[in-house]
Amino acid sequence: MEFIMKPIGVIHSPFINKKETPIQPTRSHAPGQVEVFTEFAEGLQDLEGFSHIILLYVFHQSDSHTLLVKPFLDHQLRGLFATRYPSRPNPIGLSVVRLVACRKNMLDIDGVDVLDGTPLLDIKPYVPDFDEHIDVKTGWYELRSKE
Amino acid sequence: MEFIMKPIGVIHSPFINKKETPIQPTRSHAPGQVEVFTEFAEGLQDLEGFSHIILLYVFHQSDSHTLLVKPFLDHQLRGLFATRYPSRPNPIGLSVVRLVACRKNMLDIDGVDVLDGTPLLDIKPYVPDFDEHIDVKTGWYELRSKE
Repeated sequence: MEFIMKPIGVIHSPFINKKETPIQPTRSHAPGQVEVFTEFAEGLQDLEGFSHIILLYVFHQSDSHTLLVKPFLDHQLRGLFATRYPSRPNPIGLSVVRLVACRKNMLDIDGVDVLDGTPLLDIKPYVPDFDEHIDVKTGWYELRSKE
Repeated sequence: MEFIMKPIGVIHSPFINKKETPIQPTRSHAPGQVEVFTEFAEGLQDLEGFSHIILLYVFHQSDSHTLLVKPFLDHQLRGLFATRYPSRPNPIGLSVVRLVACRKNMLDIDGVDVLDGTPLLDIKPYVPDFDEHIDVKTGWYELRSKE
């Protein structure tokens, strides 16, 4: 079974190589633009009322996956699915960014953490009722984030 | 440009038809299982320390997309990307669920909102530092959710 995904747009950012790209969007205040191909622009209607959006995109420069990885924030091997590491069997990235402005098929965003030219797969509105949770535990990350 | 995605597992849930499937996981307390194919099981290491996980999956029963849709929670047409509606150009679904137990390649979860047999694309740990945001506005949803 396989599924074919085609980009609906492209993400523009200040980051042209992996090393300078921030680890996650809450650590970034970098401005960027989401360019949605004009054939999909109608689907952006009503988006401007939302302050935050979820971007799903392809880690297009990720290498072939391994199942144990050393996360950016850690110094020992961890199971890939317990990390946000880019090299995944299906290299789909997820970032929540602040939506600053909608200009036709171009969205100005803040807090971008992806490489310039990243292929965009989907945009979803960020809704705390669905996306926020209580009593959260974060395993290995909990220790590392306090260092 | 296209990207081929292959399932890494399958989500088991009590929901066998679309009509009975809850709208979003925070409205669901249904138990479910995530079966990760054994070839990927090593990547689950360290996951059990996390209380919540992000599932990315395929809306495998979604119809071909339209760019204006009537969301489940609303009664007028909205831009597709301002909704979580399943019929999308790239039909990727996203749910955050509670991780109850890890048993080898099988994860017990709580709060499942997908159809039984949903193809799984990725698992990511849910990390409030990355995934939670402040000063959030939610456009059309803000009005509907108070009704």
